[in-house]
This record gives sequence, structure tokens and C-alpha cells, in this order.
Amino acid sequence: MDELKTISFHHQELIPAIVQDVNTKQVLMLAWMNAEALALTRRHKEAYFWSRSRQTIWHKGESSGNKLLIREIYLDCDKDTILLLVKAMGPACHTGHISCFYRNLEKNDV
Amino acid sequence: MDELKTISFHHQELIPAIVQDVNTKQVLMLAWMNAEALALTRRHKEAYFWSRSRQTIWHKGESSGNKLLIREIYLDCDKDTILLLVKAMGPACHTGHISCFYRNLEKNDV
Repeated sequence: MDELKTISFHHQELIPAIVQDVNTKQVLMLAWMNAEALALTRRHKEAYFWSRSRQTIWHKGESSGNKLLIREIYLDCDKDTILLLVKAMGPACHTGHISCFYRNLEKNDV
Repeated sequence: MDELKTISFHHQELIPAIVQDVNTKQVLMLAWMNAEALALTRRHKEAYFWSRSRQTIWHKGESSGNKLLIREIYLDCDKDTILLLVKAMGPACHTGHISCFYRNLEKNDV
């Protein structure tokens, strides 16, 4: 796909990938992708990332079972961020929370 | 707030900030924050980012009017990504799209 060739893999050739639940619309996590992680994700319809701590490809849920099944993949206007709409097979966060964003820093009255 | 002191500002001291519409739950954009941008965002209840292209603080919507009013701010488990729940005063994307994620790379049957 031509679109893919134009993706900007900078910052150690990594781009952020936002993961959102396709049904609840909850933002579950953010992880990092290189070109290989994106290719694996598209091929297998499951989320693969680049683990910055382990410096290796990371098949999300491979050990925990909490895989992220890919429903839709979006690319942003600047072609340097990915949005994955997924069906989550379990909590996305390693802490056991459904979402990694469980810390509310601030809540303002509407 | 103690929580804030532990935020990991690496990668040029920038962390990704995901912007989500508080009502529709649509993911609108991703931008970058340094400590100053986050402090300004919390103080003024409007989104401020760090513009990597212009290398300066960027008050989103200052010229276009399409400001992002802050409703909630979340910090992720690793303390290196921010999620802003906002009321958007107009299209978040500079292309005029409501969301920057208007390019569907892939859609899989459920």
C-alpha cells in the first residue's frame, strides 16, 4: 500500500500507536511501532509493538493471553501516528486495569 | 501534585498526549507535551502542546479558534503518556477533519 511507504518512522524509527476499544471507545493504551511491528499487525490482525524496554518486537498478549484483535487501523494526517481499533481479549494494562489510563490527574466540572 | 513529578519526560523531554472527545469518545489527535505544556494545560483548562516543527509552545486553537477545552486528564501506568478528554471548539485537524485519524488503512470484518 502506497500510504504505508510514506509513514514517518522517526524517533528511533518508532511511531506511537493508540489502542482504542472498538465497542466501548475507551482508550486502552499507547505503545510504539516500527515498520516491522506494523507489518506484523496488519498480517496477523493482532497487535504487535516494539518494546522500548526490551528492544524487541512485542506480540501483545502472547504470554498473558490478553491479545488485541485488530478491527480497524487509522493513520493520522501527518502520517506519524497510528490508531488501532481493537477487540481486547482481556485487560490491556499489565496492572490488570482495563485501560492503562486509570490515573485521573484532573477532572473539571463541565 | 506528587504524581506529576514522576512523569517521564524523555524523547527530547516530550511525551505523547492523546486527545479524545469527552462526548463522542472519538480520538481526535495526538500531540506532544513537555512539562511546561502540561502545566499550562492544567492551569488554563485548554490544551497546550510542544510543536516539534516550530520548536515552541503551541496553544492549540489560538489562531484557528479550534481550542480544546479540558474536561479530564489521565496519566498512564508507566507515567509517560497523557490522555486528555476535551470539548473541541471545532475540527481538531488542520485539514478541517474532525479527527486527524481520517485515513482508514484497514478494516476487518468482525
